[in-house]
Amino acid sequence: MTTAIRSEFDQGIALTPHPDEPGRYDGELGAGWQIGGGVNGGLLLAVAGHALSLAHTARPESAGHTDPVSISGYYLSAATPGPVTVRTDVVRTGRKLSTGTAALSQDGVERLRVLATHGDLAAHDGEVRTTAAPPQLPPPDQCVGVEHAPKELIAQAALLERFDMRLDPASIGWALGQPSGSGRIQGWFRLADGREPDPLLLLLVADALPPVTFDLGMPGWAPTVELTVHLRAKPAPGWLRVVHATRNLAGGYFEEDAEVWDETGRLVAQSRQLARVPR
Amino acid sequence: MTTAIRSEFDQGIALTPHPDEPGRYDGELGAGWQIGGGVNGGLLLAVAGHALSLAHTARPESAGHTDPVSISGYYLSAATPGPVTVRTDVVRTGRKLSTGTAALSQDGVERLRVLATHGDLAAHDGEVRTTAAPPQLPPPDQCVGVEHAPKELIAQAALLERFDMRLDPASIGWALGQPSGSGRIQGWFRLADGREPDPLLLLLVADALPPVTFDLGMPGWAPTVELTVHLRAKPAPGWLRVVHATRNLAGGYFEEDAEVWDETGRLVAQSRQLARVPR
Repeated sequence: MTTAIRSEFDQGIALTPHPDEPGRYDGELGAGWQIGGGVNGGLLLAVAGHALSLAHTARPESAGHTDPVSISGYYLSAATPGPVTVRTDVVRTGRKLSTGTAALSQDGVERLRVLATHGDLAAHDGEVRTTAAPPQLPPPDQCVGVEHAPKELIAQAALLERFDMRLDPASIGWALGQPSGSGRIQGWFRLADGREPDPLLLLLVADALPPVTFDLGMPGWAPTVELTVHLRAKPAPGWLRVVHATRNLAGGYFEEDAEVWDETGRLVAQSRQLARVPR
Repeated sequence: MTTAIRSEFDQGIALTPHPDEPGRYDGELGAGWQIGGGVNGGLLLAVAGHALSLAHTARPESAGHTDPVSISGYYLSAATPGPVTVRTDVVRTGRKLSTGTAALSQDGVERLRVLATHGDLAAHDGEVRTTAAPPQLPPPDQCVGVEHAPKELIAQAALLERFDMRLDPASIGWALGQPSGSGRIQGWFRLADGREPDPLLLLLVADALPPVTFDLGMPGWAPTVELTVHLRAKPAPGWLRVVHATRNLAGGYFEEDAEVWDETGRLVAQSRQLARVPR
């Protein structure tokens, strides 16, 4: 019974190829990944990214193209726990990169459309010339765990139980009714069951922290219109450092930029989403 | 003969609905939009965004969804001057936003796949709470026009003749063999023929400045893997201010973030692309 030891995240993104329909993969969205009445958008992106990884690696000409390198998701309707179907279509296969689309639906209603390019992150060259610096955070044991979150928040966010998330005390004033107004939330992240990070997990992490609008004094969930994640390196085992920030809330929308850094201090993912301001 | 007075940009993105194939639009990529041996990626994105705008506005249920709100392009092969076909598919029509895909091809070879959400930017609410500030630039007449660009650059970039672009003297050290190393290029932008900005033009502008890698001492063209533009407001007439910047060149790729500000000081577009480091 290997499922007994499989991690919650691997169960969450598990897919079975459909025997009669090439490119189709079936899965089950678990109730444990809900937030604010829907299934978390990062988990949905990881499911779609996983389906495309399976589709590319099933073909000899793109067998090594396992990792999402860039993935864009457009959110069409709220996903709910239960069966999910992902239909993939390979658009182009190149030597280093392959591009495909994925349509994630439930009961015939499309939830998410994805366009993505996969490749082999381990084969990227080793040069790093970056001016970006990891966020300065107190050590995890001096940050604030989910157990301190307001009960109303946890009640709406079953997925928080899957996370060992420690937020920087400087960016959680909102939980005490004193949002900083700077539009920035940062902290440490790992999965509660110890499952180590990999590129698919980074897709979840890019949408895992509370919306930055909390830090602007706007409680409530912020529906994602679009989320693009660039995967820049395979993450090392251990803690991830995550920063979410916004600069431009305007016209009923805001952008949320995320950076994910691994334990070696490497910037492993950069993402941006466009979301609606909570009502 | 209205074409005689139509702007170069409107000619560049002009499309004709195919009489027998719903959702198909045909156009012509002009030689005047070439750069580094291909047609500029921002122009291609504007062609695809225009096709989706036509597709949405042709349907009564999405008639007002004229403007791209978020658009993601995945670049598959280099486009060349000549006929182009755009096949659109509407994925979902909502009350405020409609989502669709566009495949741009030449002679049966796909150049660009696009996933985008359109809406009506004029209908967005008026609230602006932004911490972003426009770039500080010397006035246009104290910036450096294209006429001062190295001849080798202009020879490879016919599209520069379409632009009235004035770069900040502080960010053109690379043109004199002294790149600043900061990974930032900024300046003023308008079309040479005086055509005023609109949302489709902003898609071009997001990819109009020289690659930021020039400022890192890496000449050569940087092929775009993926480019997403968020349109945040309709631009006012007049000059645009544009900033391109990168923070993380690593593993053979870099991100290029762009901001476009209009003459009223409003942040009208934010974009990010993932591109390959020039060889």
